[in-house]
Amino acid sequence: MSHVMRFARKGTVEHIPIEQCYGRHLGEPLVASHQVPPFNKSPYDGFAIRACDTSECTRVQPKRFEVIGTIGAGALFEETVQQYQAVRIMTGAAIPDGCDAVVMLERGRHYHEAGTDFVDFNYVVKTGENISFAGEDTEAGAVLVTEGEPINPGVTALLATFGYAQVPVSRKPTVGVLSTGSELLEIGEAMEPGKIRNSNAAMLQAQIQRAGGEVIYFGQCEDDLEASLSRVEAAFEQVDILLTTGGVSVGDFDYLPAIYEWMQANVLFNKIAMRPGSVTTAAEKDGRILFGLSGNPSACYIGFELYVYPLIRSFLRSDSPYRRQAHAFLGADFPKANPYDRFVRGALTIQEGVLIATPVGLDKSNVVTSLAGADCLIMLPHGTKGYERGAQVTVFLLEDEKGASRSGFEQTIAIH
Amino acid sequence: MSHVMRFARKGTVEHIPIEQCYGRHLGEPLVASHQVPPFNKSPYDGFAIRACDTSECTRVQPKRFEVIGTIGAGALFEETVQQYQAVRIMTGAAIPDGCDAVVMLERGRHYHEAGTDFVDFNYVVKTGENISFAGEDTEAGAVLVTEGEPINPGVTALLATFGYAQVPVSRKPTVGVLSTGSELLEIGEAMEPGKIRNSNAAMLQAQIQRAGGEVIYFGQCEDDLEASLSRVEAAFEQVDILLTTGGVSVGDFDYLPAIYEWMQANVLFNKIAMRPGSVTTAAEKDGRILFGLSGNPSACYIGFELYVYPLIRSFLRSDSPYRRQAHAFLGADFPKANPYDRFVRGALTIQEGVLIATPVGLDKSNVVTSLAGADCLIMLPHGTKGYERGAQVTVFLLEDEKGASRSGFEQTIAIH
Repeated sequence: MSHVMRFARKGTVEHIPIEQCYGRHLGEPLVASHQVPPFNKSPYDGFAIRACDTSECTRVQPKRFEVIGTIGAGALFEETVQQYQAVRIMTGAAIPDGCDAVVMLERGRHYHEAGTDFVDFNYVVKTGENISFAGEDTEAGAVLVTEGEPINPGVTALLATFGYAQVPVSRKPTVGVLSTGSELLEIGEAMEPGKIRNSNAAMLQAQIQRAGGEVIYFGQCEDDLEASLSRVEAAFEQVDILLTTGGVSVGDFDYLPAIYEWMQANVLFNKIAMRPGSVTTAAEKDGRILFGLSGNPSACYIGFELYVYPLIRSFLRSDSPYRRQAHAFLGADFPKANPYDRFVRGALTIQEGVLIATPVGLDKSNVVTSLAGADCLIMLPHGTKGYERGAQVTVFLLEDEKGASRSGFEQTIAIH
Repeated sequence: MSHVMRFARKGTVEHIPIEQCYGRHLGEPLVASHQVPPFNKSPYDGFAIRACDTSECTRVQPKRFEVIGTIGAGALFEETVQQYQAVRIMTGAAIPDGCDAVVMLERGRHYHEAGTDFVDFNYVVKTGENISFAGEDTEAGAVLVTEGEPINPGVTALLATFGYAQVPVSRKPTVGVLSTGSELLEIGEAMEPGKIRNSNAAMLQAQIQRAGGEVIYFGQCEDDLEASLSRVEAAFEQVDILLTTGGVSVGDFDYLPAIYEWMQANVLFNKIAMRPGSVTTAAEKDGRILFGLSGNPSACYIGFELYVYPLIRSFLRSDSPYRRQAHAFLGADFPKANPYDRFVRGALTIQEGVLIATPVGLDKSNVVTSLAGADCLIMLPHGTKGYERGAQVTVFLLEDEKGASRSGFEQTIAIH
């Protein structure tokens, strides 16, 4: 992991209108620009009074208060409240001068007599009762959300509260996708014998967007060293991260080492001791990374989530750039023995509060559709036996926005 | 629930380029336009042969095959393979005519002799060995993903595979937001005594986007019946769903009944037996719904997720329009007794495979920041006692895309 992550860099910060910030990532810490509440206020509809005036109130001997006004939310009461006076106050309104308690609406007997409003209270009210005090929730200057955090509805509410009409967000990294493989048809093309449509490019574009990156798609090219080489080099100049998929790294047509060498890129690894995805490669040039992902859809998907995703989240200034990990119990047998750590796509269910992770696509008849339902990667450490239903496993959550500060796995990586 | 959901309607379908479809919802079922695999192909690098030619192969007496060619992915081998002939085949390539098995690369001894390529095999290969047969994963015409499903990277891969260059997606419902309340400042305004900035509108805009809707923001207006009335009515004409927040439904300034009456809207409910959110109201006119959400941020947030979210997801053609429910264990005491069902915002953690839901914002000193971390609603059924840490509760997942076909709660709703 660290082979790639030591080249992680933080993107710059840009400002956008708050209406557009949902789903982006904070470019700076979100700071409370004032205390919360900003003033002493009433959390309920009721009557603002001086608590000391109720010291002798009892059920038998209620005291009568004159209601000298009403304060709606947003309004201020201009006078100072005196002995045995009350002010009708709405939820959220500022406590008038002189008052130090609020009695809830239903606890006073409110009536009109000879042109004047009155309210009777029949119990002793404590000083401070039903008052939300200025600053009791948050002090001015407090850091409320750290930089790099994804902006969800709750964060948006905080941004609005503290006046961030323009929100500092991390610039999205541009992530290029270049598919290689002579077997690939464009999505719009009719099927031909021996060929398949290019599904990895579209899948990766969605994965990049889910991670928070900006996609630049460079199309596809044939398994041809010369052509691949110039296409890869040209694409790399235009992006923060470049992903190639397929052909060039399969079987006899593995051109990536030659391409990396020609580009004078520094190879970080060219084999990973995991399945699928062992053909994943990474190289660095000028502080930027290019990845060679497998043409196999599962391997491509998993290689992205484990290696590319953290680089994107770091660029977005997150200090939890990795996929969040959790323990879960295996929902089905996984009979395959494996000399390498294996990652399989899975679907999470929750049964009586327990997390169950079931590999998808084990049934051949189901492999295509089930991938649509995957929301985790299940890590199955290498071993000579398979795994049984109920075994405790580590899963990496794919529909999570919290992330993790550690990768959660160690790979033996071969450098060429 | 059914009060509102019987007015749920499905949006129309539009077509967009596949590059833009991530995060949208399928407007039609995704159908396999061809079988998968589309042809018999090799899942490994190896040699394609006729299995019958190995019937006498043993470790002691291997048989020699002539390698008559190489097939890269996407290429076709034009000849028919004959007795004791082999073709070098790459992962994913089509099985040549005449062949009915593939031997993995490492299981043959490959060599060059007198200008010809040979490979020796020393075991009996079974008919069909290492062949992915046409149609074994999916038959042509199979429905792979149902309409209304959110388009994630896996779905995108399927769309590409089956040639959906243009993707049928559900039109996003336009959801209007109109804030009312004389206490509200615009986000860009400086603080004033007695006033607060409008955070609910920004929060709702993010919630609408998270749900899959399109926001139209109509700004904010004072607590004034006349003004509110014309603003509400004008806004309602421009949207599929209208949300108002705050002022008009608080305390003495509850204008919503008058507004609904003037508009001749059919009131569906104007009180819900839950906390917070009891002031949530809903009315219907011309088959469209307008909601009056509370000005209290928690109540507003929760009212949206429980009542507005399912309407949006139905519009997006989902048959699982409700928030997905799960059991979890309470991570902290919730000491408040409550005569009504209560929903509180919570944060989920997973400890040794068990889901723990902890209410956020219980500590006053933490209430503002913690809301940013909420990823579930915890339902606490009404009862005379509070709840203890470890109690089993139902949670509604807020960062989930799967949804549920049932609301998961029943509310006693008062109709005026």
